[in-house]
Amino acid sequence: MSTAPDERTVTPEAIRRRIRAGRFAQPTAGLAPGYVQCNLLILPADFAEAFADFCAANKAACPVLARSAPGDPALPALGADLDIRSDLPRYRVFRDGKATDELTDIAALWQDDFVSFAFGCSFSFEEALANEGVALRYLDRGDREAVYLTDLNAVPAGRFKGKVVASMRPLQPADAIRAIAVTAKYPSVHGAPIHIGLPEMIGVDLAKPFDTIGRTRVLADELPVFWACGLTPQMALADAGLPLCITHASAHMLITDLRLADLDRS
Amino acid sequence: MSTAPDERTVTPEAIRRRIRAGRFAQPTAGLAPGYVQCNLLILPADFAEAFADFCAANKAACPVLARSAPGDPALPALGADLDIRSDLPRYRVFRDGKATDELTDIAALWQDDFVSFAFGCSFSFEEALANEGVALRYLDRGDREAVYLTDLNAVPAGRFKGKVVASMRPLQPADAIRAIAVTAKYPSVHGAPIHIGLPEMIGVDLAKPFDTIGRTRVLADELPVFWACGLTPQMALADAGLPLCITHASAHMLITDLRLADLDRS
Repeated sequence: MSTAPDERTVTPEAIRRRIRAGRFAQPTAGLAPGYVQCNLLILPADFAEAFADFCAANKAACPVLARSAPGDPALPALGADLDIRSDLPRYRVFRDGKATDELTDIAALWQDDFVSFAFGCSFSFEEALANEGVALRYLDRGDREAVYLTDLNAVPAGRFKGKVVASMRPLQPADAIRAIAVTAKYPSVHGAPIHIGLPEMIGVDLAKPFDTIGRTRVLADELPVFWACGLTPQMALADAGLPLCITHASAHMLITDLRLADLDRS
Repeated sequence: MSTAPDERTVTPEAIRRRIRAGRFAQPTAGLAPGYVQCNLLILPADFAEAFADFCAANKAACPVLARSAPGDPALPALGADLDIRSDLPRYRVFRDGKATDELTDIAALWQDDFVSFAFGCSFSFEEALANEGVALRYLDRGDREAVYLTDLNAVPAGRFKGKVVASMRPLQPADAIRAIAVTAKYPSVHGAPIHIGLPEMIGVDLAKPFDTIGRTRVLADELPVFWACGLTPQMALADAGLPLCITHASAHMLITDLRLADLDRS
């Protein structure tokens, strides 16, 4: 009896090879447990310094784990064999600030001045939460987190500016407390929440998510808990109207060789 | 020009000597910044094992820092010269479960079988919070924390049982998040909160505090945050109806030589 390879148990490198070969183009949630998944942003070198400043000034939203040299498609800190042009299952292309395409490979668009930024994603901290005994009831009941545009201003840098985008997870108070204590230890994957409990204070109407990937409900015995989200720099990048830039497509992340357990802890 | 000694700057040992000499009998909040203040419970040796079990099973409420040998008034782990019979500014005496006296010295009541338990107190973590940049607005506006009886059961041990008592501090959401991350690092002084935001879930009516030491208000932009409180074991002790036991009097704590910075961190 033979079985198909199971992405939940194979190595990050093997998954990246399947993606590179065009044999996997799905969302990456749940793949390679224990390994860090990353947001990806690629932009021309002329804008890289200002963008790096934006990330440094907004670390909760943009915790940079690796940055490439101009034109270099490798990110050896995240995987020895990694090729940033082909190893994500799906990319989103922005031209003059507008999302124009979603592609499974960007080799044809590659430029000698492209700089890649990879930073921690909340898929990784959901795993850390579960490992430390935080009940993620919203997942158990088939719900998902939701994403909201807050009225908090990100710290601007050069042409990069905008509002903070936050992901919201509904948690019972005791689990919210544990989730805060756990995620505070992981600044590389967004760190502690930016808000809990009074969404109107950050300009959020729970009934009006900016984006969802499923049903979201906050039950009477739960508090909404908000973490800074990787969509914050993606929106700032789009708003800056660069002639060409590229990001991961929503939920289609870069799977790295970094173990969650190896991340810097505060 | 000569000035009176300032309890805020002198050493814990010097403060204890003033207390021992009968020259200071006030609440200890704010004294000896940087040093841990402790709750104290003294009971006959026959009950000490069961009480130690109660503390171990309810660590958030009863984080034991030191326990004496029977009849020994010293607690060298907390201060080389410390004499537990005289070094607290005020004691409360319980006979058959009833508070009968408050005294500034208990030498006359001392028994050869008395065992002392000292554990961390929230005065210490308020200092840790302030040090780490958590705004304690309720103190700034002249309010204080309040204490509530929850409907959460402490884990019983022998004759010791009862409800969990919690201290509540009103904090803005961002400060509540920082306060959780900070106090989670200090299990020796009650650790992370036990609840946030939905007091009815733990049987608390904010309008009905069990005890207060001043006005308490939760403003519209604040959440009530609850920490397990040292009154939990004190109530369990009273409820057990021992012939004679002694505790610190409310807010009159044991000032130790332990630095907050030296406490075990989780």
